[in-house]
Amino acid sequence: MQKTFQIKTTRHSDMVDITSKLEEWIYESGVEEGILVVTSMHTTAGITVNENADPDVKTDMLRRLDEIYPWNHVKDLHAEGNTAAHLKTSTVGHAQTLIVSEGKLLLGTWQGVYFCEFDGPRDRNYQVKLIAAE
Amino acid sequence: MQKTFQIKTTRHSDMVDITSKLEEWIYESGVEEGILVVTSMHTTAGITVNENADPDVKTDMLRRLDEIYPWNHVKDLHAEGNTAAHLKTSTVGHAQTLIVSEGKLLLGTWQGVYFCEFDGPRDRNYQVKLIAAE
Amino acid sequence: MQKTFQIKTTRHSDMVDITSKLEEWIYESGVEEGILVVTSMHTTAGITVNENADPDVKTDMLRRLDEIYPWNHVKDLHAEGNTAAHLKTSTVGHAQTLIVSEGKLLLGTWQGVYFCEFDGPRDRNYQVKLIAAE
Repeated sequence: MQKTFQIKTTRHSDMVDITSKLEEWIYESGVEEGILVVTSMHTTAGITVNENADPDVKTDMLRRLDEIYPWNHVKDLHAEGNTAAHLKTSTVGHAQTLIVSEGKLLLGTWQGVYFCEFDGPRDRNYQVKLIAAE
Repeated sequence: MQKTFQIKTTRHSDMVDITSKLEEWIYESGVEEGILVVTSMHTTAGITVNENADPDVKTDMLRRLDEIYPWNHVKDLHAEGNTAAHLKTSTVGHAQTLIVSEGKLLLGTWQGVYFCEFDGPRDRNYQVKLIAAE
Repeated sequence: MQKTFQIKTTRHSDMVDITSKLEEWIYESGVEEGILVVTSMHTTAGITVNENADPDVKTDMLRRLDEIYPWNHVKDLHAEGNTAAHLKTSTVGHAQTLIVSEGKLLLGTWQGVYFCEFDGPRDRNYQVKLIAAE
């Protein structure tokens, strides 16, 4: 089973929690056991799993990523000027593979799934594929 | 098939080779061909695949990650003070997907699978799901 | 289904687009729907998904990775001297999991799959496993 999700990001850099969107769809699918691949369809936006409780974690993460990969870099050649966003995407990953168990994502207490915008705001989309397997 | 593995880490930062644990379990499962998803259930500990021979590689990797993501950062907001560990987890990845072939993990000669502790020592766990498929 | 691909890299650091190789093989397999795991068999070379249009993106990415993980580091212990390449591999990932749909890789317009050489030139190989699933 497969689905396209659309998302409208509202900031230049952001981590948007998509866990409940994914879980609703798994529930509708009726699949109890398997794996789920979630993939950004972009080269300046990725997917990661990280803390779902204190919003300061994502603020800190986005700011530190920006320090490591500053937006402006005198040596960058790419004319669009968003090399930093490409690097952040390959660092966190354009996609993640998640375990589905008992009809839900198998996540730790503090884990959430995030769509990571690194060059927004934009209209984005991500795809999911669910492989059912005992 | 699915299993929870418990692990007690002994250092603040560490890479613990879990390859043989995973291979024992694959052997017990009787599955010859498929894929294995290994996921940390935490937001300050991840999974990576890297060198299994010279222990200096992991010492160097952990030290360099610490230089890039220093533990203390004057701008961090997160009250627990472990933002660096969250970032390291998203950098190496909270999970990895591995190929199973001929009843074993399909790894290169120098590849091992590591549970990466970034905020220990702690009692941790990771989950594995094995999808059998020719 | 599974296959070993050989690749001869020609530079010390490089991102080689392997998208068409993967798609040819998916076409030959006849599989329409599923997931594909692509894994480097090395600890100093990885796999990532990033821009397939402007070659300046990969030039910038490789140069910035080299700035973050400089080849020479006075504290490195690893005798082979390629700790930076190990770190780059764990940063981009040794492997990626991709969605296969309608007999092709499900990628965005600007996404390509890259074999990332971080300590070349060398003879390398990567493995792919295709799991068919509706």
